[in-house]
Amino acid sequence: MNAVELIRRKRDGQELAAEDVRAFVRGYTDGAIPDYQAAALLMAIYFRGLGGAELDALTLAMLHSGEVVDLSDLAGAKVDKHSTGGVGDKISLHLAPAVAACGVKVPMISGRGLGHTGGTLDKLEAIPGFSVDLTVERFREVLADCGMALIGQTAKLAPADKKLYALRDVTGTVESIPLIAASIMSKKLAEGIDGLVLDVKVGSGAFMKTAEEARKLAATLVDIGRRAGKKVAALITDMDQPLGRWLGNAVEVQESIEVLSGRGEPDLVELTLALGAEMLRLGGAAETVEEGRDKIAAVLKDGSALERFRRCVELQGGELPVSTRGWFAEDTARVATPQAGFVTRIDAEAVGLSAIALGAGRLRKEDAIDPSTWIWLKKKVGEPVELGEDLAWFSTPRQAGREAPASVASQVTAQLRAAYTVGPERPTPRPLVLETLR
Amino acid sequence: MNAVELIRRKRDGQELAAEDVRAFVRGYTDGAIPDYQAAALLMAIYFRGLGGAELDALTLAMLHSGEVVDLSDLAGAKVDKHSTGGVGDKISLHLAPAVAACGVKVPMISGRGLGHTGGTLDKLEAIPGFSVDLTVERFREVLADCGMALIGQTAKLAPADKKLYALRDVTGTVESIPLIAASIMSKKLAEGIDGLVLDVKVGSGAFMKTAEEARKLAATLVDIGRRAGKKVAALITDMDQPLGRWLGNAVEVQESIEVLSGRGEPDLVELTLALGAEMLRLGGAAETVEEGRDKIAAVLKDGSALERFRRCVELQGGELPVSTRGWFAEDTARVATPQAGFVTRIDAEAVGLSAIALGAGRLRKEDAIDPSTWIWLKKKVGEPVELGEDLAWFSTPRQAGREAPASVASQVTAQLRAAYTVGPERPTPRPLVLETLR
Repeated sequence: MNAVELIRRKRDGQELAAEDVRAFVRGYTDGAIPDYQAAALLMAIYFRGLGGAELDALTLAMLHSGEVVDLSDLAGAKVDKHSTGGVGDKISLHLAPAVAACGVKVPMISGRGLGHTGGTLDKLEAIPGFSVDLTVERFREVLADCGMALIGQTAKLAPADKKLYALRDVTGTVESIPLIAASIMSKKLAEGIDGLVLDVKVGSGAFMKTAEEARKLAATLVDIGRRAGKKVAALITDMDQPLGRWLGNAVEVQESIEVLSGRGEPDLVELTLALGAEMLRLGGAAETVEEGRDKIAAVLKDGSALERFRRCVELQGGELPVSTRGWFAEDTARVATPQAGFVTRIDAEAVGLSAIALGAGRLRKEDAIDPSTWIWLKKKVGEPVELGEDLAWFSTPRQAGREAPASVASQVTAQLRAAYTVGPERPTPRPLVLETLR
Repeated sequence: MNAVELIRRKRDGQELAAEDVRAFVRGYTDGAIPDYQAAALLMAIYFRGLGGAELDALTLAMLHSGEVVDLSDLAGAKVDKHSTGGVGDKISLHLAPAVAACGVKVPMISGRGLGHTGGTLDKLEAIPGFSVDLTVERFREVLADCGMALIGQTAKLAPADKKLYALRDVTGTVESIPLIAASIMSKKLAEGIDGLVLDVKVGSGAFMKTAEEARKLAATLVDIGRRAGKKVAALITDMDQPLGRWLGNAVEVQESIEVLSGRGEPDLVELTLALGAEMLRLGGAAETVEEGRDKIAAVLKDGSALERFRRCVELQGGELPVSTRGWFAEDTARVATPQAGFVTRIDAEAVGLSAIALGAGRLRKEDAIDPSTWIWLKKKVGEPVELGEDLAWFSTPRQAGREAPASVASQVTAQLRAAYTVGPERPTPRPLVLETLR
């Protein structure tokens, strides 16, 4: 395999042989192919895309660059969920125990938050003592015991993806649907799952800004998974406003426990039912989506999902409850509306960036996180507001990074106020699940 | 300037600010911007192109990355010619003295051959003692004395272009018209010229395979030169068969001296008149192209061009005549035609590659050259051949590289035979100069 020839072929829109794609991934991972040739190839892929056979070859080569978990000796179906990343998305935390409580195992390997979206691992680490760094052996034990396990990606899992992702990040080649799809699927196929439900988010708070892009990504993900012999479904869901009312790490765990306690915000519950129903269907625990929804609703009501969550937290070394920072006048900043009417839009990306500014997430991998900071969306889309009424509250910043707390507070106040659009008429409600690819 | 942001802007088809392009070239040259980010940007430029202002910024930044020769204290106009590279193209060797003999100075900085095309420097070095490595001071002296100087690119000239070209070579980003144009012009603008005539070759033996590509490159080169305040013209010329009848280094010097002696192959003479007339016009030594052609023809006839060449060779340490390998039965291989008719086509690229196989050129920069090897095209396009008649002769290979001489000989014989197309009808003659951009 001649690397320059490979780059030129892709650049000219020709299809690459599977063997050449494998040789490229192998060569790049072991250092035989330098970064600059990989960068040129990635940019050519950005423009030319990848055909099905090329995509499978890339995904499988990245998958087989590291350890592949084998859960075949564990009884029952193993189904995971993957979200492309949203703002206020704490769904995994209560979805996994709900599905586990219905008899389908959930071996979930999650990522950290980067950019304006939060990460499941960061939320889990707000639980005192909770460890996301389990060995594969311990991961299997937890899974066998409580039907679920929530861990972070180990260095042994798809190392080629790690190296390529880091390169994409610094060469402007992140936003490529085939590269995104291969990256996601190489990691998910390494988990030893039978089925996978994809939550492809679209809207201002998602990486995919248009329905067309989201549909293309969803279809690409489903195709790769099917061709790899997995049961796959994808939901395209709305991320034009944040999910739930809370942003932060400790507070999102609390909001998730609300759902597990049979309460919770309607959008969180609805998405949990929709995703859970698909997972049960793929895992064979429900014949139809309707049956699946009913089963998930039942375990959220009767406390069995919450019980699973408590057991998983215990097995992974954590301790509930999670302490959150109180609501005291001196610890809370308020953002009021300059006009009356109805909330017609909340820019989810701007809210996500506000949460990061408060220390809830990271812009760079090395940034530290403060699990106690939060934003509360007092008002969501469709709700009426009076002149001067509060739209949102947030925890007042403490000295942490380089910036002065007062300057962070005024920046977040302005950003949150600008994130809200208030108009004279109540907007037509948007469905949460826009499309389902089965 | 954020390098990732710059890459993303170009990737998305936005125009880059001139200041950012300059910062990029500076950063890449001094090592602050790594190869992989430059590679991604080059590939994005390959797909998106560069606008006029971006192109000027890139060209001038590469130009000013090194030494710029100032010839303004030298009386008279300074005009150079640049060819995009062809097979059998020894035009510079007799064009420069002809133009100099007409009173226009020719400060010519040439490159080495790479790929299937030959390089002027390699031909010049077939002249015993001839030095192409002059200091800038000596270059000026030679130019002042005989009106011409023929040297190689120094390390001080446009070092940014050298670094970027090397990267393009290994990242599949050579074939980009704006990048080719910026590379050529950054070096030519560093020569201290007032005018430049571009010979943009098109056809099987050229880098530009179609008239459309050649026209686009020619227009881009002319635009950059004009905006930089130079007088520029471009000729689009045919490279569908080699120029002249000889390929090799020593033999091409000899063939060039034939032209300087008032004889020479018609295609070589015609192209010399066409390019020389433009150079005289740009240099103010001729009012019209017709007048320019007459003047060039006169100095080729009366020996004054040859005298200039002899003087230049002497000043640069060389000694004429050039010794060439004789035509003896044991030193010459012959390629006969398997059918009778007319030569309708000679694949110039294949002929160029045959010359390289014989040691006349190099595929890699570090390859050594044997100046004595040659190919003689006994037949050219339009000429009749009888069954079994010779099409071409070549010097039998001697042990040089890794391959056995006999295997090289049989490979070259097959390649040359395949390069010729013989058909039943005499083809319509093609014009040598296809288009002129003034």
